[in-house]
Amino acid sequence: MDVNGEHKVTISAIAKEAGVSVPTVSRVVNGRSDVAPGTRRRVEDLLRQHDYRRRASRNRNKARLIDLVFNDLDSPWSVEIIRGVEDVAHSAGVGTVVSAIHRKSEPTRQWQQNLRARASDGVIMVNSTLDSSAQDELRRLNVPLVVVDPAGGPSLAAPAVGATNWAGGLSAMEHLLELGHRRIGIVSGPRAMMCSRARLDGYRAGLEAAGLAIDEKLLWEGDFYHESGFAGAQAFLRNPEPPTAILASSDQMAIGAYEAVRQSGLRVPDDVSIVGFDDLPEVRWASPPLTTVRQPLSDMGAVAARTVLRLAAGEPVDSPRLELATSLIARESTAPPKLS
Amino acid sequence: MDVNGEHKVTISAIAKEAGVSVPTVSRVVNGRSDVAPGTRRRVEDLLRQHDYRRRASRNRNKARLIDLVFNDLDSPWSVEIIRGVEDVAHSAGVGTVVSAIHRKSEPTRQWQQNLRARASDGVIMVNSTLDSSAQDELRRLNVPLVVVDPAGGPSLAAPAVGATNWAGGLSAMEHLLELGHRRIGIVSGPRAMMCSRARLDGYRAGLEAAGLAIDEKLLWEGDFYHESGFAGAQAFLRNPEPPTAILASSDQMAIGAYEAVRQSGLRVPDDVSIVGFDDLPEVRWASPPLTTVRQPLSDMGAVAARTVLRLAAGEPVDSPRLELATSLIARESTAPPKLS
Repeated sequence: MDVNGEHKVTISAIAKEAGVSVPTVSRVVNGRSDVAPGTRRRVEDLLRQHDYRRRASRNRNKARLIDLVFNDLDSPWSVEIIRGVEDVAHSAGVGTVVSAIHRKSEPTRQWQQNLRARASDGVIMVNSTLDSSAQDELRRLNVPLVVVDPAGGPSLAAPAVGATNWAGGLSAMEHLLELGHRRIGIVSGPRAMMCSRARLDGYRAGLEAAGLAIDEKLLWEGDFYHESGFAGAQAFLRNPEPPTAILASSDQMAIGAYEAVRQSGLRVPDDVSIVGFDDLPEVRWASPPLTTVRQPLSDMGAVAARTVLRLAAGEPVDSPRLELATSLIARESTAPPKLS
Repeated sequence: MDVNGEHKVTISAIAKEAGVSVPTVSRVVNGRSDVAPGTRRRVEDLLRQHDYRRRASRNRNKARLIDLVFNDLDSPWSVEIIRGVEDVAHSAGVGTVVSAIHRKSEPTRQWQQNLRARASDGVIMVNSTLDSSAQDELRRLNVPLVVVDPAGGPSLAAPAVGATNWAGGLSAMEHLLELGHRRIGIVSGPRAMMCSRARLDGYRAGLEAAGLAIDEKLLWEGDFYHESGFAGAQAFLRNPEPPTAILASSDQMAIGAYEAVRQSGLRVPDDVSIVGFDDLPEVRWASPPLTTVRQPLSDMGAVAARTVLRLAAGEPVDSPRLELATSLIARESTAPPKLS
């Protein structure tokens, strides 16, 4: 077959040849991580051998659209991700449909209808997961899905692009420890989110490597927004033994912590050092400029866009999970602790 | 005719009956402002009388998409506008395609191709104007255009949604004058942009109303970004007679000015009061929280979306130009001047 380039190999033929189930081949085609490495290799070899191509979108006229979906459009970092996705999509002649799954009673129903109507080529979800009915719907529509900075568990239903959150948390700690800090508080993100847990574990690893114990009073769970950074720092500063440095798991929480320090009549970094996480463009202009762990948000968006376009074209992805490197950007919000 | 609801009235029939040219009727249908009020009324009456409806988009299957176009996706205020547009579009079952006309040699060619391919229902341009070839193209495609916060001249090729920039500049001045400031500098936006000029004129009007002369040394032209606010404030503070207050025409420039004050060993508001313009969510968290003129960015996006959807449905718009109200939000970056 395939002599005239007309009869293409089917997923079920591949499944038969590989001795696996049809859903397993489908999982490999969709770049999912829940396939054993050996099976994945065998199926990928066969897909390549038979020059398998994902069937084209149901519509003859491809929509040439990617759907980029946020929980809410309420953070300055969303524009960083939009920029990265749009840049790649624009070059490929593809439009970027930005939407928010609003916190409403029927969050995804309307969005699913819209998606079906416009027949998008692919979907990128940011910091969010779809419920299983929405995932089934995407599979029915043959629309590939990629997740950016996933909040969910490690066994994912889609390829994911994240940052090296654990290494980022650790690099912030190494910086503070090197400056001489021994009492360091952390305002983490929600512990239910994988990225927050990885940053928190990086913090723990830093303390352990320095032979320091973890003090539960110096752990505060925030929600990534300013208010929670303010509340966490305020609680730390009321502690009879306040920390000399605070690691905030987002820039917004770091800026909230600045305000708590200021309201206590103290100064950053003279009295308290603060490290953020993200490196939003505006934190260069915080007073003082914020030392932070740079997360390459627009690069993450760009990689997600390239991945979803490859999946839409029926090409295999390099890896079901990619973590882009974080790096510590030292500015003026960190200094050696005061001699007491 | 029109008995069976099949034969619709044409633009040329309306033009004939009104005794005007076809392009004039077309301008009214597209909500443009360059039509004399009397003519507009006459044409609108006839359009209503004959129940004129803009012909549907060329495609039988409407794309159900709005194109939202920025010059660059590099500012936190873009997410405010996206949120406003997306909220209205989402409710209408319409997708929001976000794109940037990148500062490239062929800025709009690619975008025009993409737009044609996806057959959008309407276009919203933010802080940007299209060259005339792109405008002709939109007309050919029968795609309505709405402009948000236009930078161009008052005679616009499309309905526009802005803010009361002049009144906003004036309200900032009234606040500073009331606190007792007499020497007030302004870091304006680019003077080529109408919104900047309106804010600058509001500044002038405030000084004049208080019987104060304009000092050219207290006028600095910025570009809305942090760096220029920093540079402007730094120049003011090196002046032998420095201002006791600075009005910045954007929040980002106000935050840049904070840093210049800090680097001079001075404090906001003790030594220098600072007022911004925009009220981005994060300036509540500046140290100290920024007093600023609130521009209802997400409302502006929402109104633009409603307007473009009305035009796409062939309904008339309320007004070819809408200005939404600004309001002064007094926080902690302003105080009476130091007694000297």
